[in-house]
Amino acid sequence: MTDFPKSVKIHEEGPREGFQIERGQIATAQKVELIEALSETGLKRIQIVSFVNPRKVPGMADADAVVSAFRPTPGVKYTALWLNERGLQRARQTGKLTLEGKISIYASEAFSMRNNNRTTQQEFEYARRVLAEYKAQDIPVERGSVSNAFGCNFQGEIPIATVLDLLRRIFEIAEENEIVLKEISLADTMAWATPLAIKRMVGAVRDRYPDLPINLHLHDTRGMGIANAYAALEMGVTGFDAAVGGLGGCPFAGHKGASGNVCTEDLVFLCSELGIETGIDLDRLIECARLAETIVGHPLPGSVMKGGRLPRRTSQ
Amino acid sequence: MTDFPKSVKIHEEGPREGFQIERGQIATAQKVELIEALSETGLKRIQIVSFVNPRKVPGMADADAVVSAFRPTPGVKYTALWLNERGLQRARQTGKLTLEGKISIYASEAFSMRNNNRTTQQEFEYARRVLAEYKAQDIPVERGSVSNAFGCNFQGEIPIATVLDLLRRIFEIAEENEIVLKEISLADTMAWATPLAIKRMVGAVRDRYPDLPINLHLHDTRGMGIANAYAALEMGVTGFDAAVGGLGGCPFAGHKGASGNVCTEDLVFLCSELGIETGIDLDRLIECARLAETIVGHPLPGSVMKGGRLPRRTSQ
Repeated sequence: MTDFPKSVKIHEEGPREGFQIERGQIATAQKVELIEALSETGLKRIQIVSFVNPRKVPGMADADAVVSAFRPTPGVKYTALWLNERGLQRARQTGKLTLEGKISIYASEAFSMRNNNRTTQQEFEYARRVLAEYKAQDIPVERGSVSNAFGCNFQGEIPIATVLDLLRRIFEIAEENEIVLKEISLADTMAWATPLAIKRMVGAVRDRYPDLPINLHLHDTRGMGIANAYAALEMGVTGFDAAVGGLGGCPFAGHKGASGNVCTEDLVFLCSELGIETGIDLDRLIECARLAETIVGHPLPGSVMKGGRLPRRTSQ
Repeated sequence: MTDFPKSVKIHEEGPREGFQIERGQIATAQKVELIEALSETGLKRIQIVSFVNPRKVPGMADADAVVSAFRPTPGVKYTALWLNERGLQRARQTGKLTLEGKISIYASEAFSMRNNNRTTQQEFEYARRVLAEYKAQDIPVERGSVSNAFGCNFQGEIPIATVLDLLRRIFEIAEENEIVLKEISLADTMAWATPLAIKRMVGAVRDRYPDLPINLHLHDTRGMGIANAYAALEMGVTGFDAAVGGLGGCPFAGHKGASGNVCTEDLVFLCSELGIETGIDLDRLIECARLAETIVGHPLPGSVMKGGRLPRRTSQ
């Protein structure tokens, strides 16, 4: 009935996703406190800041200060997001981050035009230039990524064939640059996926690239996040991006209270109940979710942090 | 891969679940407004009040007044909850409600002792007496129901064998009374279910009673509600209890902000995206969820009411 993986890797993105979207000013020390607390949960990869234009994203104006201040835990990779060379340069200058290159393409041309004023063809040309830059700077590139892979508010549903075609082109430009991609990532940026769509898309991608692990970046904006993660686990997906407490929101949702990324501790709870290893201490993670709620000063959408984990287990 | 039903029946319980748990006083007229708005969505069965002790459940002290005031929509069944003869008598006196008898047993003896000071054996004796009363009053009994069917905070996980044994005894006392049960209902009262547990339990029950439709009463306290509903749909489940906006909470959760029943419009959204008929107008239902939020005066946990339905569909 199922093809559950033995273990999954969770990439925590709460500090980056959450603090970049919060309206009020959050003290650098509080961001650092959450990052350090998350480092003690067993999470092995935490995206902590984005290096972006502080006028556009004021919540990330202190990104350099955050990275400078936090005390890294050995064995944990700390990552960052950047959108251009200037951002990459800032990330590199910190000397404390794991720099991960990727080839990332929007499945929705409408969104790409809107966000970057680039056609898909131009996106690929841009990706080629970025790849050359990564190579020149010796930054490893292991991930091929398709955003808005399930649908887009500005373009509608994305056909599976479109995603497969984009992946084919991504692998082509990787090969041109003698890069061997080791992971495929699909992002449901605007929360269009349903569990059935996940099964179909992941099934098709897995058929085409049977040897590569698949990572999903899921949003819970329409309440399908955990159901989608479950469907993905049934299809053998082994990697997820998630945000503690459900930190972050969705700039494309009709309502400011809308959820963002799938909630890390709810996902860890699900995995734990299914017998899938995450290496994460759920109790500590719930404490982090509560800390995050205190820091942002409003309720977060996470459920297990409120409902509590199962009070005790007896064998069935 | 799936065994989706063509259509599902959703029993809306928001007015009863929601208003009985809210702390502040909610005006009778506002309860009536929500009930009447829900009646225009296509929902065919709405549980609107409980007839219980007003000292224990002050939010339902005006149950008689609510029933007296609302304008029923033809074709919609309005139901109520009662826990004893006095409650049943009040429900009957309204003359406006569909009286539905059921045989309902807690799977958790620990919970039954705690709540009703009755052993499971005593629960069955009580059920026999209630059944005789329903018969005497000509109240149809069509549903056999097991509560806490997946687990209980006071007893732990519930084995599938326990649920099957309780169902066997429920069908026995139905037969003794020449009652033919037409539906099995399983309640995840304390939100212990996971999608895998749903598949196993529903599979086992369906194997035993292949001709009877199964209804699920799911709680979202630990964020698994929609994932559990999806797993149930894959197993061919055709009935769900749900609460608009996710109205209601969970008195057993560790936190007052915990979610209660699975959210109706999120469930309708899921069904609609899977091509499963509900007969419900999602836009109108979302309006009801927003009305419910206004009435209770605090954010409700529903997601689609915040994230918005998919802005448009294109064919895939």
